[in-house]
Amino acid sequence: MTAPALLDRLTRALGADAVLTAPDAIAPYLRERRGLYAGAAVAVARPGDTEGVATTVRLCAEHGAAVVPQGGNTGLCGGAVAEAGNVILSLERLDRIRRVDADDFTLTAEAGCTLAAVQQAAAEVDRLFPLGYAAEAECQIGGNLATNAGGMNVLRYGNARDLVLGLEVVLGDGRVWNGLRRLRKDNSGYDLRDLFIGAEGTLGIITAAVLKLFPAPRHRATALVALDDPQAAVALLGQLRGASADAVTTCELMGRTPLAMAIAHGEGCAEPFDEVHPWYLLVELTSSRVHDDLPGLLGTALNDPAAPVRRWRIAANAAEAAALWRLRNQIPPAQKGAGASIKNDISVPVSRVPVLIEQATAAVAELDPNVRVCAFGHVGDGNIHFNLSQPEGADPQAFLAQWETFTRRVHDVALELEGSFAAEHGIGLLKPGEVARLKDPVEQDLMRRLKAALDPDGRLNPGKVVPACRGPISRPARGA
Amino acid sequence: MTAPALLDRLTRALGADAVLTAPDAIAPYLRERRGLYAGAAVAVARPGDTEGVATTVRLCAEHGAAVVPQGGNTGLCGGAVAEAGNVILSLERLDRIRRVDADDFTLTAEAGCTLAAVQQAAAEVDRLFPLGYAAEAECQIGGNLATNAGGMNVLRYGNARDLVLGLEVVLGDGRVWNGLRRLRKDNSGYDLRDLFIGAEGTLGIITAAVLKLFPAPRHRATALVALDDPQAAVALLGQLRGASADAVTTCELMGRTPLAMAIAHGEGCAEPFDEVHPWYLLVELTSSRVHDDLPGLLGTALNDPAAPVRRWRIAANAAEAAALWRLRNQIPPAQKGAGASIKNDISVPVSRVPVLIEQATAAVAELDPNVRVCAFGHVGDGNIHFNLSQPEGADPQAFLAQWETFTRRVHDVALELEGSFAAEHGIGLLKPGEVARLKDPVEQDLMRRLKAALDPDGRLNPGKVVPACRGPISRPARGA
Repeated sequence: MTAPALLDRLTRALGADAVLTAPDAIAPYLRERRGLYAGAAVAVARPGDTEGVATTVRLCAEHGAAVVPQGGNTGLCGGAVAEAGNVILSLERLDRIRRVDADDFTLTAEAGCTLAAVQQAAAEVDRLFPLGYAAEAECQIGGNLATNAGGMNVLRYGNARDLVLGLEVVLGDGRVWNGLRRLRKDNSGYDLRDLFIGAEGTLGIITAAVLKLFPAPRHRATALVALDDPQAAVALLGQLRGASADAVTTCELMGRTPLAMAIAHGEGCAEPFDEVHPWYLLVELTSSRVHDDLPGLLGTALNDPAAPVRRWRIAANAAEAAALWRLRNQIPPAQKGAGASIKNDISVPVSRVPVLIEQATAAVAELDPNVRVCAFGHVGDGNIHFNLSQPEGADPQAFLAQWETFTRRVHDVALELEGSFAAEHGIGLLKPGEVARLKDPVEQDLMRRLKAALDPDGRLNPGKVVPACRGPISRPARGA
Repeated sequence: MTAPALLDRLTRALGADAVLTAPDAIAPYLRERRGLYAGAAVAVARPGDTEGVATTVRLCAEHGAAVVPQGGNTGLCGGAVAEAGNVILSLERLDRIRRVDADDFTLTAEAGCTLAAVQQAAAEVDRLFPLGYAAEAECQIGGNLATNAGGMNVLRYGNARDLVLGLEVVLGDGRVWNGLRRLRKDNSGYDLRDLFIGAEGTLGIITAAVLKLFPAPRHRATALVALDDPQAAVALLGQLRGASADAVTTCELMGRTPLAMAIAHGEGCAEPFDEVHPWYLLVELTSSRVHDDLPGLLGTALNDPAAPVRRWRIAANAAEAAALWRLRNQIPPAQKGAGASIKNDISVPVSRVPVLIEQATAAVAELDPNVRVCAFGHVGDGNIHFNLSQPEGADPQAFLAQWETFTRRVHDVALELEGSFAAEHGIGLLKPGEVARLKDPVEQDLMRRLKAALDPDGRLNPGKVVPACRGPISRPARGA
């Protein structure tokens, strides 16, 4: 049960350079992106293949040590944060693209491949792997699947879950489940695959996956549309989905407040129209047809007198499209220029986005009328990043101290609208309390039963996702 | 524990007309589509709402009776077959469309709605529910989800699983899990939804679902293409997916043998070309764009000198399209005209369909060179219905007696090609033996753990899917 004995066995099994214990060496694995948690660990194991992952898990089980799997460590909810006594299992050395099958529209990647590497491998055979978001150069596909990542193209291609055909998973006792199937249809047993996807490593550790590919887009049309209100965005999206035969791959709503922040603090952002508008929508259509006129199609749809738009501009070339995208992509970094920020990753049925924004804004104003609401995000998925920037001139720490007060209030509004308090960033360490507070007891009971069935000793990523299975871990104090 | 006491309580709880016990009344619920199984039951309960389903399950649990859920009873693997002492729980009276949300592209249906009724409700708001196959007028959406049904449009829209956002499920102890979410993104806990989908009622009974809708197609192009071999079909499909921006909704391969059977025995089928060809492909493209020229697009793609085609014809109108579809749809009924038939519902990675057909045909010929191979089906899903018609003039019963010999041999070929022995029809009573024989012991162990976690007393649809949890049921003798 002693750490030295475990470390000795791990080192002998994996090799000395695959087991890090020096404080300097493990520091990067302890750092948490938002600075919400202070991590700790007895060691970082970096096996180079599936067998090494299985060995690591088995040895940790024998020594009673909990295992915290870690990909690119870009998560926003503390899902990869460890505490004293834990072994962090980094998947970063499992970074091979095992195979690419263009005819099958599939690709088999190990967990440690960056999302960008997966995208690149698909592009090399004229295929698209559509998952994409800001952290794509750093985040790893294993982490993307463990958190069922969302991003910019969910509207057309689905969440990470929808892009997977098969998985290879190391179980809590060190056995390997080989479910690495490249099949479009398989009803030969229970759907184990989707149980591991989104479970944040609490039921098993994903070591490889078969991913779906799509025809590579040849054409693209990008527009920024000015709107009266979020209701207009919902209506316009429905019209565009039909008019384009579901070629809408991106549909990002932005309030004036976050757009103004991007223009004020972001890099290379300019006012897009002569006038200021209350709401904006970034729309992108893509198509793999040999001949296609997406700007024309988009222009026709936006010119329709029935289209609920105030103004719009369609990018005339790639540079103009990039400028429109910058307005969206610079919102998160620009928010930092506006001081401390409390993040809400919530979702509701698409048609309820307007009332969600209205009611959540009112609820926040009741708590503090000077908080600046930055509502933006994936309206086509009903997923709004309802972020709250501190009042101008207020003390950042004092504002962050109210994190739970604000997020609970916003979650309550989302739940009343049949929504979710965790849309695309997961649960991690940040939200198990909300799972306990907000989820149907029947569902919590089912989650506990599944955790007990697959990880009876609670050694896999303890403290994450399932409130009653937190085990020995305690939530570290929040930083800035 | 006595049946009379249970029947008395069920009758008092549900009403006398909701509990059938007379042999004539329950006979239709015992009938099995293929005549492979002789069913039995102590009663058929027909509750009218979710609460009635919960009551039925709870009372059966209290009396130690197993519950066999049943939808339209159109399954092909005996998944809805009951035996003496079981209570059949028919979902047929839960037949309400609870809501249709055109803006959200969702629809909420109770389990007993026929698939056709769901399609119709979507069409009424200019939306598409894309699941579709031959039994759509009789089969029920609850059964479609319990078996993760496939069908004709999987290539473009996915299996039944991919079309679901939320579920309502009655658990084995009679509790109700309300997971009826209309959310495109929700990572607030484990993915319970996909565990119940495809589990054939062995983990819980689906009582309602939120389904995804899509823009209704406005344009359609249908072609029949003559090909040298299945490899040409795989190559052509890849080209068409790209050239059409994934507008290919149907891609059905047909060997000459089944096509000739359709022409000889089917209704309204005529030879499609002047010459006979070894392989045929039915291709359909659809689009919801206001203006679109799919026949033109398809013609251009098929005219491409690089396209691996022998001959082709594009339907000039709906009547011609219907004639082409009849060639495909008349294959299953026409097979009956050719005598007894042993069915294989197998899948492999799409690129391996050619070698699957080649090797499986050779394996069957080794067993009996006079068996007629009818290979046809969903090449875009890698899912071939590799059906075997008896040798001409042979005794049907003697041929059917070799069911296991032939199917095992064909399954072995599929498995060697990394395929599945159960692609879209499920396991039911027909294939738990193959689960035990062919599935990785680790996966079988995980399945057993899940069954034990969610239905510890084994009362839900015993004998189906999980080999070790067959409970008291024994496999009935096979009929004709």
